[in-house]
Amino acid sequence: MYAVDRDPLLLTPGPLTTSLRTKQAMLHDWGSWDAGFNTITADVCRQLVAIAHGEDSHVCVPLQGSGTFSVEAALGTLVPRHGKVLVPNNGAYCARILKILGYLGREAVELRFAEDQPADPAAIEAALAADPAITHVAQVHCETGTGILNPLAEIAAAVARQGRELIVDAMSSFAALDIDLRTTPITALVAASGKCLEGVPGMGFVIVRQSALEAAAGNCHSLAMDLHDQWQYMQKTTQWRFTPPTHVVVALHAALAQYAEEGGLNARHARYAANCAALVDGMAGLGLKPFLAPEHQAPIIVTFHAPSGPNYDFKTFYAAVRDKGFILYPGKLTEVDTFRVGCIGALTTQDMAKVIDAVGATLRAMNVAVDG
Amino acid sequence: MYAVDRDPLLLTPGPLTTSLRTKQAMLHDWGSWDAGFNTITADVCRQLVAIAHGEDSHVCVPLQGSGTFSVEAALGTLVPRHGKVLVPNNGAYCARILKILGYLGREAVELRFAEDQPADPAAIEAALAADPAITHVAQVHCETGTGILNPLAEIAAAVARQGRELIVDAMSSFAALDIDLRTTPITALVAASGKCLEGVPGMGFVIVRQSALEAAAGNCHSLAMDLHDQWQYMQKTTQWRFTPPTHVVVALHAALAQYAEEGGLNARHARYAANCAALVDGMAGLGLKPFLAPEHQAPIIVTFHAPSGPNYDFKTFYAAVRDKGFILYPGKLTEVDTFRVGCIGALTTQDMAKVIDAVGATLRAMNVAVDG
Ligand SMILES: Cc1ncc(COP(=O)(O)O)c(C=O)c1O
Ligand SMILES: Cc1ncc(COP(=O)(O)O)c(C=O)c1O
Repeated sequence: MYAVDRDPLLLTPGPLTTSLRTKQAMLHDWGSWDAGFNTITADVCRQLVAIAHGEDSHVCVPLQGSGTFSVEAALGTLVPRHGKVLVPNNGAYCARILKILGYLGREAVELRFAEDQPADPAAIEAALAADPAITHVAQVHCETGTGILNPLAEIAAAVARQGRELIVDAMSSFAALDIDLRTTPITALVAASGKCLEGVPGMGFVIVRQSALEAAAGNCHSLAMDLHDQWQYMQKTTQWRFTPPTHVVVALHAALAQYAEEGGLNARHARYAANCAALVDGMAGLGLKPFLAPEHQAPIIVTFHAPSGPNYDFKTFYAAVRDKGFILYPGKLTEVDTFRVGCIGALTTQDMAKVIDAVGATLRAMNVAVDG
Repeated sequence: MYAVDRDPLLLTPGPLTTSLRTKQAMLHDWGSWDAGFNTITADVCRQLVAIAHGEDSHVCVPLQGSGTFSVEAALGTLVPRHGKVLVPNNGAYCARILKILGYLGREAVELRFAEDQPADPAAIEAALAADPAITHVAQVHCETGTGILNPLAEIAAAVARQGRELIVDAMSSFAALDIDLRTTPITALVAASGKCLEGVPGMGFVIVRQSALEAAAGNCHSLAMDLHDQWQYMQKTTQWRFTPPTHVVVALHAALAQYAEEGGLNARHARYAANCAALVDGMAGLGLKPFLAPEHQAPIIVTFHAPSGPNYDFKTFYAAVRDKGFILYPGKLTEVDTFRVGCIGALTTQDMAKVIDAVGATLRAMNVAVDG
């Protein structure tokens, strides 16, 4: 058991460790009809659009629920009933998009890539050229299932050359990896409160080209997820259509203030990149190897091969590291035994060093041989 | 301006004023994969089922998002694609159910009642007898648009006699008004964290007869809202399918502890009933009359006729009462000018007395004549 009376650090891709200041913002109750609260909502939306440089073209529609709700809302609202969606698939969150499209009854085409290989812009462009019926591409930016970075700018350029719309699941990359809507043609960008913005989970948002949203009336399969309706209502009233997760919203507002104070995207990216480097280096010292080649690794979450040998099992390993004060994440791969460690949240390289210490001590105590 | 440095009290039907202890539960971060958190989820679900005495027949499926998300999820999951739903309509939240069914493409029949009249069990039974194609009734318990109480037990008995399924929107009544699933035949009961349980908003839940849920695989129009899929996954893993609103869940857990300490449903009901009586009495002293006859009034939220005369306008009234530290709620009626005052949340009759004082002082300052 860890002796210090503090919460375990979350080395997970959300929910993650947030600052005390962010959590303390939740010590107040807000009326959802009140101007005080609705000013905060508007300010959050303004800042989210600005992070992606979409002020001249895009609007932000926040949505209650987890990030998946916003992914489904973006697909359901923006893809017309007779649209057809190309889904480059190199991991679990790409597969989830395919599952959503199945529920929605929207036609989907899967373009498979190996889980350790980024989606290939040329292959995407060829698939679009070959099938003019495809109206949209749904691309995951950082595929959190492995931690792989897909080449978003090149994919966006290819999709634009082919005259199709691009919906991006930027859940685990938004605000840490640069996405510039002035130069990268993207119809909609989906993310959530509890990832690289370091808010608490409970709301997602879609940063969507205003013209595309305006054209999307009547598409959606769901009242709750109708982004067009949510946006229209907010425009008219400044309020959310249905009860907002008020405490989550004010926590995100506090998190955004800290994001700006830290230095915005560049500073956030630099801290996560340093965390990632410290993690990969330290784990290498313990003989633990990342699943991905370094050039494909996003500085968000790292998948490590599990130690080989009979003494290792994830549950025991997880529990022992947790008792030392650190919460790791299971792997999401079916073919290879792995575990994952997040680089995001209110964490620094000092924290990563402590994680390495805890993992090392645990493996020694478990008598697990790692192939150094 | 109110001089004391405290948050305004929310006289609204959620979000509402919660206790400091409930909010302080949010000062910790939890891993969504971790057993510590999933034990809390299980405990919350167990307690929610017990409040409605459904232990032998029903299970609780929690869902991310606002209450409307859970209403839509219950309809989408439980009503088969070729089902037909009778919706007794005496207010705004009944109308919302009709809107949802329209989105879902499920056939709906509206049975209209006046907004100041409860839904009539005999009329519902007659409508069911006349149309054997109707498979489900979707009934709002306390219609928060006015505050009217619909006679749920009698409606449930009528629906059961006709052999149909009953889905109840108990959003604003659950945990304060008695619903006993042992004696009242109800397929599904929908509510949310931020109402009479006095948690913070951000999750809903559906307490559903296990056999009905088991039969509902494949019905749902939405991945995010598929209660069958959410339940199956939770059964298998103890985890939520998608990132849970961790802080909202632990706040609800803390709120449930306080609910039990207060004395459970009877005590909560008694406090709200006392708040309601104090409110109605006090407002009567100012010449303000409730929209509903006393026998139809639920002790949840009271709709008052707006003062007549040229000096009254809601925005000015609202702002002045807010400056005194109390947040009221606008009316939801289109034909009659009203405003609403909630009786729920961490409030007592002492607070209601202060609200009356603030309203009285405001009306005098506005020089509004009320017909005493
Ligand atoms: C890339 C990506 N997409 C979608 C999601 C789903 O988000 P949520 O779990 O909040 O529904 C995640 C969650 O980690 C993610 O990383
Ligand atoms: C009876 C009833 N149904 C549904 C809702 C919708 O809940 P939410 O605003 O959380 O979506 C409410 C909200 O007050 C309600 O009172």
